[in-house]
Amino acid sequence: MSKKINVGIIGAGKIGKLHANNLSTFAEVKIRAISDVYIDQMTDWVSTFGVDYVTTDYKDILHDPEIDAVLVCTPTKMHVEIVLEAATFKKHVFCEKPISFILEDTLKVLRAVKDAGILFQVGFVRRFDHNFKKVYELVRQGRIGTPHIIHIFSRDPEPAPKEYVKHSGGMPFDMTIHDFDMIRYLTQFEVEEVYAQGSVLIDEFFRECNDIDTAVYLLRFTNGSLGVIDNSRKAEYGYDQRVEVFGSRGSITIKNDVDNSAEVMTKEGVLSEKPKWFYLERYNEAFKEELKSFLKCIVTGQEPIVNGNDGLQAELMAHAAARSLKEGRPVKIQEILLESTGRIPRL
Amino acid sequence: MSKKINVGIIGAGKIGKLHANNLSTFAEVKIRAISDVYIDQMTDWVSTFGVDYVTTDYKDILHDPEIDAVLVCTPTKMHVEIVLEAATFKKHVFCEKPISFILEDTLKVLRAVKDAGILFQVGFVRRFDHNFKKVYELVRQGRIGTPHIIHIFSRDPEPAPKEYVKHSGGMPFDMTIHDFDMIRYLTQFEVEEVYAQGSVLIDEFFRECNDIDTAVYLLRFTNGSLGVIDNSRKAEYGYDQRVEVFGSRGSITIKNDVDNSAEVMTKEGVLSEKPKWFYLERYNEAFKEELKSFLKCIVTGQEPIVNGNDGLQAELMAHAAARSLKEGRPVKIQEILLESTGRIPRL
Amino acid sequence: MSKKINVGIIGAGKIGKLHANNLSTFAEVKIRAISDVYIDQMTDWVSTFGVDYVTTDYKDILHDPEIDAVLVCTPTKMHVEIVLEAATFKKHVFCEKPISFILEDTLKVLRAVKDAGILFQVGFVRRFDHNFKKVYELVRQGRIGTPHIIHIFSRDPEPAPKEYVKHSGGMPFDMTIHDFDMIRYLTQFEVEEVYAQGSVLIDEFFRECNDIDTAVYLLRFTNGSLGVIDNSRKAEYGYDQRVEVFGSRGSITIKNDVDNSAEVMTKEGVLSEKPKWFYLERYNEAFKEELKSFLKCIVTGQEPIVNGNDGLQAELMAHAAARSLKEGRPVKIQEILLESTGRIPRL
Amino acid sequence: MSKKINVGIIGAGKIGKLHANNLSTFAEVKIRAISDVYIDQMTDWVSTFGVDYVTTDYKDILHDPEIDAVLVCTPTKMHVEIVLEAATFKKHVFCEKPISFILEDTLKVLRAVKDAGILFQVGFVRRFDHNFKKVYELVRQGRIGTPHIIHIFSRDPEPAPKEYVKHSGGMPFDMTIHDFDMIRYLTQFEVEEVYAQGSVLIDEFFRECNDIDTAVYLLRFTNGSLGVIDNSRKAEYGYDQRVEVFGSRGSITIKNDVDNSAEVMTKEGVLSEKPKWFYLERYNEAFKEELKSFLKCIVTGQEPIVNGNDGLQAELMAHAAARSLKEGRPVKIQEILLESTGRIPRL
Repeated sequence: MSKKINVGIIGAGKIGKLHANNLSTFAEVKIRAISDVYIDQMTDWVSTFGVDYVTTDYKDILHDPEIDAVLVCTPTKMHVEIVLEAATFKKHVFCEKPISFILEDTLKVLRAVKDAGILFQVGFVRRFDHNFKKVYELVRQGRIGTPHIIHIFSRDPEPAPKEYVKHSGGMPFDMTIHDFDMIRYLTQFEVEEVYAQGSVLIDEFFRECNDIDTAVYLLRFTNGSLGVIDNSRKAEYGYDQRVEVFGSRGSITIKNDVDNSAEVMTKEGVLSEKPKWFYLERYNEAFKEELKSFLKCIVTGQEPIVNGNDGLQAELMAHAAARSLKEGRPVKIQEILLESTGRIPRL
Repeated sequence: MSKKINVGIIGAGKIGKLHANNLSTFAEVKIRAISDVYIDQMTDWVSTFGVDYVTTDYKDILHDPEIDAVLVCTPTKMHVEIVLEAATFKKHVFCEKPISFILEDTLKVLRAVKDAGILFQVGFVRRFDHNFKKVYELVRQGRIGTPHIIHIFSRDPEPAPKEYVKHSGGMPFDMTIHDFDMIRYLTQFEVEEVYAQGSVLIDEFFRECNDIDTAVYLLRFTNGSLGVIDNSRKAEYGYDQRVEVFGSRGSITIKNDVDNSAEVMTKEGVLSEKPKWFYLERYNEAFKEELKSFLKCIVTGQEPIVNGNDGLQAELMAHAAARSLKEGRPVKIQEILLESTGRIPRL
Repeated sequence: MSKKINVGIIGAGKIGKLHANNLSTFAEVKIRAISDVYIDQMTDWVSTFGVDYVTTDYKDILHDPEIDAVLVCTPTKMHVEIVLEAATFKKHVFCEKPISFILEDTLKVLRAVKDAGILFQVGFVRRFDHNFKKVYELVRQGRIGTPHIIHIFSRDPEPAPKEYVKHSGGMPFDMTIHDFDMIRYLTQFEVEEVYAQGSVLIDEFFRECNDIDTAVYLLRFTNGSLGVIDNSRKAEYGYDQRVEVFGSRGSITIKNDVDNSAEVMTKEGVLSEKPKWFYLERYNEAFKEELKSFLKCIVTGQEPIVNGNDGLQAELMAHAAARSLKEGRPVKIQEILLESTGRIPRL
Repeated sequence: MSKKINVGIIGAGKIGKLHANNLSTFAEVKIRAISDVYIDQMTDWVSTFGVDYVTTDYKDILHDPEIDAVLVCTPTKMHVEIVLEAATFKKHVFCEKPISFILEDTLKVLRAVKDAGILFQVGFVRRFDHNFKKVYELVRQGRIGTPHIIHIFSRDPEPAPKEYVKHSGGMPFDMTIHDFDMIRYLTQFEVEEVYAQGSVLIDEFFRECNDIDTAVYLLRFTNGSLGVIDNSRKAEYGYDQRVEVFGSRGSITIKNDVDNSAEVMTKEGVLSEKPKWFYLERYNEAFKEELKSFLKCIVTGQEPIVNGNDGLQAELMAHAAARSLKEGRPVKIQEILLESTGRIPRL
């Protein structure tokens, strides 16, 4: 009935393909075009849903006057260039996380987006998960009073491919960035200081990449409340994604999603299902909700649930964490902010 | 790529609409036509997905040479007439449960379907639920040895509308029929005898309809194992759908599905989510899987997972249960079978 | 400070020893004497706590003017003779279950106890279990409205010794009797009719004893509510003792007690502890509470929580169940009562 | 049969009384004497079990040649003096935690105990809890491979009395000391560095005492594995005592103990029992097991499960934590050790 939203997808790697597949089932969207340097090798996949054209040059998409919004799903290092150009063409932007590895770049993007008056959503998909959303609502309703300590458990079932690891920006940027955002989302507190401890306990390859595979982050919020993030690159039993928020009146916990609730009781004990394997399984519905929310903002003009500042704050925490890991001391967010520009940046 | 399967939907009440909505998202299907006596009042709904035509006369669908298969979603009393005619036109049939309230009619349908060589699937959707399927697999794998006692808990959150209740055939036919099928599916045993106890504890209206709202069925399988079905028309906390299979080596239980796994711990106790509300919520995915399975059988020519005999056996149990309720004694399946035809019917 | 209660224990088999060991840790009790035909072979055990004397003749205990109360822990067939004599000597009596296998005998005991004005408690220990007590309280508080359907799961981890089985009175008397009492206790309803289905699925020895090892009982209460009891003589995973009470406003369930709450999550799944092994482990504390409650009644003169009528009602249900098993039909409690005396007995 | 162990109890405050009550039910022990400055006001309590004498002067107990072992349950500041003197009289010592607030004093005690050849057990009662013991066993069995990250949640239901708080030594010494021990016990790793973050979020009184009421500790073990301790002085829902050990092959968690397993399902949700209220309820059995283990060591001559070095290591962690809180930086155990004596102390 109402006009469809025309979307262009820039980057058709794992996450770009995922978004394309989801968009193809939405009645309100038309996937106008997809760009990827290897798009010519994806004809089979592309043919499974209607798309007006494909291209190896993302600029074709930005220059296309029919397109209302773009999904930026390229490697992180290309985000800034693409989003800045998208802003000049007034395309609404959904950008995967992190916006960039360089604080000045992220600030540049945020200013451009603001000046252009376009919508800008960052891909923190977990905010759209049924369990995390419920925790958010319960905290907002005051069910546990003021949060005092929040714990996030976020463990991958297996390390990412080595080629990815080399350019991932390190654990705080490739993995913990989701948790940095989640901890702000659930508490609605801002972080004042980050202390990080990391180790290589799973695969020496991470040491070769100047990276870690196991870490705990201790965060202090501006109000004195505390946060803990537990990260591992390998939980053999599956994707472990839980949170506990403890407050003045009580505590909220969530469990992992499982494929079925069967419990088998034998003389060996009571055996039940392990967590879903990885993010494609666990956040399957959340990925759809994330895009639906973005599309709704395009229709209504509302600010996205995950906006540019949310992207920035998580990156600030990642920078502080990276420095803490390197220097073995707690690092204040303020220190990162001031240093990057000589003063606290005006957004 | 491959030719789409053309489907006609006969009956666009609650369940017909549900199936239509699901089919409309399947790439491999074309909804060719929908018939319903009130179809003219449904233009808004029909317009939300493509359909070649609608009609108030289901015969238009049966006569349409383009149509491969039909979904029979009318009130039960019309099933027999429609399926018999569908068989003459060699349309594959998916038929909602029960096939009929009259044993001879059901037998007639089964013979017609067999003679026509068409596929015939009965709408026992719960076999396609992730939890029940897992129990089935675990039992098949011998994880609990031989089943000795099986319990099914099947409680609706609220009674069906009064207009529906009047013509539903009574609890054994409108509600327990699903459980009769499930208990055969999970054990792969056949039932020898049924004893039923029922009461009106929720709403006197059921008494006026010669029906009950609360019941327990005690079943004896031919091998001496036992089965229990617990039915209530009103569980205030939601749709309660569980099973326990106890066997020589152990026991399997499943829990209800919930919207989220959040647990809130306060001085009042630990509060977690109640079950999903009703079958639309709980069996949302199962309804899709049910149709996918039917469509796959059309492509491969395989026998449906729920075939005509499954429909028949559940109805035999319902007849035995209804008689047990009426006469206050255990009733053998054999007694029902012999009586209906003077001898055990040849299928 | 206050005078100790002098107790005599009659019968020092498994359960007599258990009670003696528990009593020996109670400050308010003196175990005055223990009688058993084999007591001379138990000197080691007797020496572990103070007792004034032992005897092979239980009459010594009944004739002892120092003794306030006796625990009758002999085989069932001796209960009647002992309790009748205890009544003449005005000893308060704690009697293991069942009182007898013969309805007239039990009625005789109840009249004697009433005429003598002594306290009489029957050994339905499960009423003193922390979980069952909590269910009782929650039902009493109206937390689930009026009970509509109650399920009891009561499975032993292994069959009793063959010598015991031969004289146990059969499953309804040796095993289900506990559940018959529990179902009355939790609902506070009286049973109108019993239908029982039993099989031999575990050990052919039970068939040789005219007994069964697997059973389901379907009970109808006088108000139309329904009850289910699930019994097995062998749950390989341990003693399975659970209940579910479903009512007009909700449902209550309890879980089995376990030794620890550890959950181990590996790629094989999530493994947790199986139930405690048997009644000594599960009802360890309840056995103590049971005696404490009896002793408290002696001090206060209050009616025991499990009185003679409770013993009688459970036996009536057991008789009805035994007949139902034999005759394959539902049996009314009224039928058993009338038949035993030609009229409803006056208590 | 065998000679009873004669025990003297020094200090009859809350914990001394608890131990006395427990000892009084052990067949193998004689409570020879109890000392407390206020013992004359406790005649009622003392009379509930047999004791040869009471005294206001603990030296009477140490000088008593009949006494084999003493329980030191005084305020912490008196521990050192008493234990040193007990060592000269060759009494085996069970000492409540911590041994002292001053590292040199603790080292002095350890040397005295060693030189005297007496048994010395420190009161880390949680090692004897059924759940924590199970985690220990599972980790030892290699069920989760090598521990990578361990989390301890240890929250009191309410703050200790203000008079106690003033002299408690601060959170790391009065509360976290148990967790410091537990984390070593479960992992069998030694801690290399401690970083602590603390806040006053519950009661300003703690600030006045230079103390905190909410804290998180991030520990680094010598092998690079990481530990987290979460402490709060007020969890309104009860005593929250859990642990998660995550390792290379899986993860182990435990739940809180509860009084009953009843779950009430209504339209408000599913409500179950909150944790037991405090340590008297949760560690009721562990307190008995702790003393039984100590008594068994006296009989067998085996080293106590919690020895002097365990007391020392936990105190080192507490000192490091206190300094970290004060100076806002991670503190190495080595730094505390070297500083206290100018060199690493020889034990």
